[in-house]
Amino acid sequence: MSSISKPFYAVIAGVGAGTGRSVALRFAQAYPVVLLSRRPESYNPVVDEIRQQGGEALGISTDLTDPNSVKAAFETIKRELPGRQLAAAIYNASSRPSIKSFLDTTPDDLSRSLVGNAHGLLNFAHSALPLLLSSVSATPAPPYPPTLIITGATASLRGSARFGAFAAGKFAVRALGQSLAREFGPQGVHVAHVIVDGVIDMPLTKGWPANGGVEDGKLNPDAIADSYWHLHTQHRSSFTQELDLRPYVEKF
Amino acid sequence: MSSISKPFYAVIAGVGAGTGRSVALRFAQAYPVVLLSRRPESYNPVVDEIRQQGGEALGISTDLTDPNSVKAAFETIKRELPGRQLAAAIYNASSRPSIKSFLDTTPDDLSRSLVGNAHGLLNFAHSALPLLLSSVSATPAPPYPPTLIITGATASLRGSARFGAFAAGKFAVRALGQSLAREFGPQGVHVAHVIVDGVIDMPLTKGWPANGGVEDGKLNPDAIADSYWHLHTQHRSSFTQELDLRPYVEKF
Amino acid sequence: MSSISKPFYAVIAGVGAGTGRSVALRFAQAYPVVLLSRRPESYNPVVDEIRQQGGEALGISTDLTDPNSVKAAFETIKRELPGRQLAAAIYNASSRPSIKSFLDTTPDDLSRSLVGNAHGLLNFAHSALPLLLSSVSATPAPPYPPTLIITGATASLRGSARFGAFAAGKFAVRALGQSLAREFGPQGVHVAHVIVDGVIDMPLTKGWPANGGVEDGKLNPDAIADSYWHLHTQHRSSFTQELDLRPYVEKF
Amino acid sequence: MSSISKPFYAVIAGVGAGTGRSVALRFAQAYPVVLLSRRPESYNPVVDEIRQQGGEALGISTDLTDPNSVKAAFETIKRELPGRQLAAAIYNASSRPSIKSFLDTTPDDLSRSLVGNAHGLLNFAHSALPLLLSSVSATPAPPYPPTLIITGATASLRGSARFGAFAAGKFAVRALGQSLAREFGPQGVHVAHVIVDGVIDMPLTKGWPANGGVEDGKLNPDAIADSYWHLHTQHRSSFTQELDLRPYVEKF
Repeated sequence: MSSISKPFYAVIAGVGAGTGRSVALRFAQAYPVVLLSRRPESYNPVVDEIRQQGGEALGISTDLTDPNSVKAAFETIKRELPGRQLAAAIYNASSRPSIKSFLDTTPDDLSRSLVGNAHGLLNFAHSALPLLLSSVSATPAPPYPPTLIITGATASLRGSARFGAFAAGKFAVRALGQSLAREFGPQGVHVAHVIVDGVIDMPLTKGWPANGGVEDGKLNPDAIADSYWHLHTQHRSSFTQELDLRPYVEKF
Repeated sequence: MSSISKPFYAVIAGVGAGTGRSVALRFAQAYPVVLLSRRPESYNPVVDEIRQQGGEALGISTDLTDPNSVKAAFETIKRELPGRQLAAAIYNASSRPSIKSFLDTTPDDLSRSLVGNAHGLLNFAHSALPLLLSSVSATPAPPYPPTLIITGATASLRGSARFGAFAAGKFAVRALGQSLAREFGPQGVHVAHVIVDGVIDMPLTKGWPANGGVEDGKLNPDAIADSYWHLHTQHRSSFTQELDLRPYVEKF
Repeated sequence: MSSISKPFYAVIAGVGAGTGRSVALRFAQAYPVVLLSRRPESYNPVVDEIRQQGGEALGISTDLTDPNSVKAAFETIKRELPGRQLAAAIYNASSRPSIKSFLDTTPDDLSRSLVGNAHGLLNFAHSALPLLLSSVSATPAPPYPPTLIITGATASLRGSARFGAFAAGKFAVRALGQSLAREFGPQGVHVAHVIVDGVIDMPLTKGWPANGGVEDGKLNPDAIADSYWHLHTQHRSSFTQELDLRPYVEKF
Repeated sequence: MSSISKPFYAVIAGVGAGTGRSVALRFAQAYPVVLLSRRPESYNPVVDEIRQQGGEALGISTDLTDPNSVKAAFETIKRELPGRQLAAAIYNASSRPSIKSFLDTTPDDLSRSLVGNAHGLLNFAHSALPLLLSSVSATPAPPYPPTLIITGATASLRGSARFGAFAAGKFAVRALGQSLAREFGPQGVHVAHVIVDGVIDMPLTKGWPANGGVEDGKLNPDAIADSYWHLHTQHRSSFTQELDLRPYVEKF
């Protein structure tokens, strides 16, 4: 990305074929974007897609659950995008354990959810927040308030039967998000949490019969990305901390 | 408005110098807008402003608490905008009683809040919803899903001491909004409720020392309007039912 | 009730064959109780039952939606129970409009719900709160902190499709309850709101197939009354503002 | 405890000088109680106190964050209380990390909170739930529905600035609690979560100036225990899943 001339960039953690990809494509219309996923197979197709559309993208293999891996990723960013400021950081990673009875839920199941959801956010935000804070007063000024957006789910608000481990991880992420919003909002960083309440339309869910298979019964990830972009552009006098997104036909 | 050629329009109920004005100006960039307020002094300056910017606007004196007055307003709309479809309806009216001890809160105080908030929404939505439903399948298709947006407040979520009557009205509005979202969402109409959590920056609040007088410590109503517009443009696979808006420095 | 010797009493508004009756019977184990219902047919059987069990009870025909009727009822109480202090006031009245589409919900439907739920509470609490406040520092001291308990429902928390008018009234009641708790709690009066989430087992609901007709699939009103009594007995260092009650098999 | 003749017992995890002690004393009025704490210094004084009052108590040194330690504790219980049925299990353990900026919150801080709160509950409930389920249909029948009560805090509902790690752990516990309630409620086990919103009056907090030092401005743990006992006694047709407890003067 040596040719990048724009002074700002965005970083998206957790990029696959769904929301992460759409968010990356959307933010790439405005910024160079850095994509963090565990495996290159996850981000490479998106990097290619962005480049084909004339955008700039960099993929970095990152284990978000490992603080050192995340630190190394941000070192790479610093080296590859020298002198650039972080405009937006999106935490879209999630770890969803199997759905099963509480009695079959092992400590490992719970750990994987807590680490894959909450520790991932902690690690990511530890690196991203100092950069976002520094962007608040950067010269030139950022086009919009520096932003951290966190992807939540139905399970962020509700512990359903057989979803205990997953809900524990998502509740914990929401707790961290609220705490970050209250600590860093007054310093000019916008922290928002998005409740995605429904099935996302992506290759993985192709056969899922969400909402009886009705058209638009699954969330279009490009539509999700539009709302992420809107959150990023909100004026600091009017920040959203939390919003929900769901298909028009979703029961709630 | 005889020269209006666009096939869609928006209607905003409760237009004064704050959120209503900004929303009207924002939606007037895309649609002819109809402004409903009790007194012409409230909407006339906004109508003028929209026209000066090349937009189309019509003000109608309407008592939202009176079903017949609201019906008459929509009759006028039908006559003045023949053949046009309703794209968006914004309920921004509010009735805020004095803040006082419960023991000093009269049945009239409570009535004014319940009628001025909840009955106003009932009356407005009674006329707007059939039009929004008809727009869902209109030809040509509407640019975005037909939308009803309702303005809420901190008191929509929390009954503070000495705010009982106000909170009762705002809670009731939120109840209606949820009920409408669940009934009409599956029919294609997007119903959203916005929690405005803070002081809005408008002539009335000029001297109010919100958030210690810090810059952007009050909600810029144009910023609010940007989020209303975003809600209107959301794809039906990804509707927001509720979001909050507050200044970056607001305690919450 | 001229023979009443105990210095405290309780008043229950909204007494029929369900929760109100059970609460009256439960509180009558400790206090003379006053029962307010619109019609004598509603409270007379409960008054008889209490007397048969050795308790003291007084029924007063009261229209809770009419401030003057409520004032008259409390005048009667003052006359009939001279020198006695109010220990607990239970607001169990409710007005449940028909469940129907929003488009068929008339302003009258909404009014009946708002008046029958929220105005009823306002009127009742206007008379009860000064008495409860006076009991805080009465001599002899009350056995428990003076208490106002309000009956809520699923619709207090959630505006379902076709339940708009009912939810509006119940949301408004909850708003008032929170406001009262925050204003009068620090003055020593305990204000609690109970979410009854399910069908109550009473003559009216005999044939209702709640939870597939399973045993205890409807709320036993005596069990509800036990929780009301517990709320009343809570120490002022540990007040509950809100709790939910639902059958073990209820989906939520 | 070889002389125990009652067929039921209760187990309390997390017993020190505050809520755990009071809950143990309260439940010891009805059942033999087993107290689990990491160190004997925590439970020994409570065991002594219970015995002095004629109750039966057994303390077991248990590391709730270690599945094997918890399993071993329940093996001990099985051996020491042969043929007895579990009537109530109270999860009162908590791990509260230092309050500090997110940027100073280490992965270890977060881990300690997640493990000390959520894993502790998982481990405890893994052993307790099968016993509670078996008690549902035990002969003789249990006096009340078998119960699991979980202690929460303000941070269970709200992620405040500088409380991120603590809130993450408490949110995760609440998620598990909801999931357990929804899975095991229909099987007859009552799972309740208690939001303790305020400072508890105990040796540790003696000098804390809660609510300006006003009398009863801190939660009396005996009062908390009364509400736990009430939860345990609720009829299965009328279970509370969540309630809040706070001093009458607490701001909320």
